[in-house]
Amino acid sequence: MDARSLSGILTEVREKRPLVHHITNYVTVNDCANVTLCIGAAPVMAHAHDEVAEMVAMAGALVLNIGTLDHRQVESMLAAGHRANELNIPIILDPVGAGATRLRTETAKTLLHKLHVSVLKGNAGEIATLAGAEGKVRGVDSAGVSGDPAEFARGLAEKLGLVVAVSGATDIVTDGKRLIYVDNGHEMMGKLSGTGCMASSISGAFAAASKDYVTSTAAALASFGVAGEKAAKRCEGPASFKIALLDEIYRLTADEVAHNIKVRFA
Amino acid sequence: MDARSLSGILTEVREKRPLVHHITNYVTVNDCANVTLCIGAAPVMAHAHDEVAEMVAMAGALVLNIGTLDHRQVESMLAAGHRANELNIPIILDPVGAGATRLRTETAKTLLHKLHVSVLKGNAGEIATLAGAEGKVRGVDSAGVSGDPAEFARGLAEKLGLVVAVSGATDIVTDGKRLIYVDNGHEMMGKLSGTGCMASSISGAFAAASKDYVTSTAAALASFGVAGEKAAKRCEGPASFKIALLDEIYRLTADEVAHNIKVRFA
Amino acid sequence: MDARSLSGILTEVREKRPLVHHITNYVTVNDCANVTLCIGAAPVMAHAHDEVAEMVAMAGALVLNIGTLDHRQVESMLAAGHRANELNIPIILDPVGAGATRLRTETAKTLLHKLHVSVLKGNAGEIATLAGAEGKVRGVDSAGVSGDPAEFARGLAEKLGLVVAVSGATDIVTDGKRLIYVDNGHEMMGKLSGTGCMASSISGAFAAASKDYVTSTAAALASFGVAGEKAAKRCEGPASFKIALLDEIYRLTADEVAHNIKVRFA
Repeated sequence: MDARSLSGILTEVREKRPLVHHITNYVTVNDCANVTLCIGAAPVMAHAHDEVAEMVAMAGALVLNIGTLDHRQVESMLAAGHRANELNIPIILDPVGAGATRLRTETAKTLLHKLHVSVLKGNAGEIATLAGAEGKVRGVDSAGVSGDPAEFARGLAEKLGLVVAVSGATDIVTDGKRLIYVDNGHEMMGKLSGTGCMASSISGAFAAASKDYVTSTAAALASFGVAGEKAAKRCEGPASFKIALLDEIYRLTADEVAHNIKVRFA
Repeated sequence: MDARSLSGILTEVREKRPLVHHITNYVTVNDCANVTLCIGAAPVMAHAHDEVAEMVAMAGALVLNIGTLDHRQVESMLAAGHRANELNIPIILDPVGAGATRLRTETAKTLLHKLHVSVLKGNAGEIATLAGAEGKVRGVDSAGVSGDPAEFARGLAEKLGLVVAVSGATDIVTDGKRLIYVDNGHEMMGKLSGTGCMASSISGAFAAASKDYVTSTAAALASFGVAGEKAAKRCEGPASFKIALLDEIYRLTADEVAHNIKVRFA
Repeated sequence: MDARSLSGILTEVREKRPLVHHITNYVTVNDCANVTLCIGAAPVMAHAHDEVAEMVAMAGALVLNIGTLDHRQVESMLAAGHRANELNIPIILDPVGAGATRLRTETAKTLLHKLHVSVLKGNAGEIATLAGAEGKVRGVDSAGVSGDPAEFARGLAEKLGLVVAVSGATDIVTDGKRLIYVDNGHEMMGKLSGTGCMASSISGAFAAASKDYVTSTAAALASFGVAGEKAAKRCEGPASFKIALLDEIYRLTADEVAHNIKVRFA
């Protein structure tokens, strides 16, 4: 595995144009739809309990994001997730706000327990909470953790048998054995709402294109980060940054990713 | 009917500033609100079962969009729709994803059966599905149809006694007798989420201003397309295109529409 | 109280970075999240009945916005609001569409009756409706009032024991005794969806930073208006205006507010 093979997954996404079924929050859902289109995949958002199993069967990946969860939505996530598991469609779980409220923490744990999730992607506080490490989450933001995120991510990945990704200035992706640090990205990505959710959508598109989820997730986060670096050069604040970010994702080539990717294999 | 009379409807929208009541999806709802304002009308989004009948009574048009439907929302669509019918307020139905899941197909059929819809606007796959022709819908995207969309649209319009609009590189608008092709638009409009929904919102605003719904819908789609052509000249990707598109809709004049409209009367 | 002390609240917001819990509509929720970040606070949106009391306990302010209300959401607003009151966390209520439907009018009155709201912010028609004055609301827009908004706002503030803010070309902020006119802003702010909601979010962030809610609300509206004036100089329509507005809010300094603030103390 090297930078070239990572960057090649972007090409596969664009060739396959996988459908990415989202059950997600209403805050950043438009950003998720557009980032999925810009990366070269096709988004669909559907949450009704009596259609999610049918919809997910058409999809290449299922993204579950609990950013504005409620009980009905969680029931639909379970229904969609069970069907995805039957069909070996990868599930990406973004446990937004786990650690902030019992509902979010317990829901994330329930989804991890009842479904076979392929990729769990959160911030350090969320992942620490789910790993049983000390982590604080204020609202939907990580507010500090004790210990090394790489270590508790690795432990959680091993325990649950999935890929864990921790977003941050340096992203961490691990399946418990392999561990990749992704150094791409820009601080502007923390200045607006939705970049974490967008990263999960892109991770879904990449998981639909490549079944090695450590690789696909690292490639997704690196690609997103490279686009963010380019966008930061031509923005005047968070809102123009978001516009530039989406445009850059649309224009991003596998060559650009290969030349600008910054990953370290631990 | 000629290009000049079509373009004049934009002027009427701006003079009347009709209220357009939407019961719509949470993915593109902000785009729908802003496009309605930019074209010169006033949007309101309201879905609670115990207020929709009262709200729609103030409106010049009702837009029903099933992009993220569930049962409660459909009940509200029916309540609003019945009241709209009593008051002769035109209903625009966008059957997003009909053909992709049974829920969407059946809901679209139920709404068409129980309400008098004035304009049914969808992509080729959705309209083919509702016309009983062969059409494939993957997520919310048309994935190929058999046969000539103009023919099955015409047949469906005649059978249901309404105006059918099929969006695509060339849009089709027909009431079963008259048929208009609209060649305006730009491929960038297919690169972002929400353009189909926005077209339905604009069609609602135009239907509120002119009771000849073949004409009003063709004028709406042509106006939207002309703005899209202008926006495509100054964008760097789908996100900056959306910003330019909304700005161009706001700045669009009836003269510009008259000079740039490309319609063919079949 | 002078312009300098008003502008200083922006600095406090940025130092404290308060969490602002929103239970709000799905039309402009993304704008609310981003404006909260841009002003220097942290947004969280959560509506599930079994987490709102826990979430609001972490927050510096609670923003309740009934733009797309339904019964379940109102129950959650009450649960969050009761907990906020117990903890002396200020509540900002935006009674979107009060006066347009009975549900909206009655819900706004119920929230005002059952909760101790700190700041009630609406357009002239909404506030007139709640003050028992003559006001018309069409959809979510004020459609004319009889009488002087300053007078009925003052009366309502005195009667309810809270701060009332009336948005408009000139904003009015009063607690029944003191009254401040805010002349900042730009007509472009009325050309797009969401500026009223954003003003409520900023008012929430400022209320979390300063417990004198007349001052904090006037400072919030003035700061928002100054950013709007700057944004209007470099836009080509409502959509590019929104991007510029958010960027300008992010870049806004207390000095700029102090130099450009236009307030009159009545």
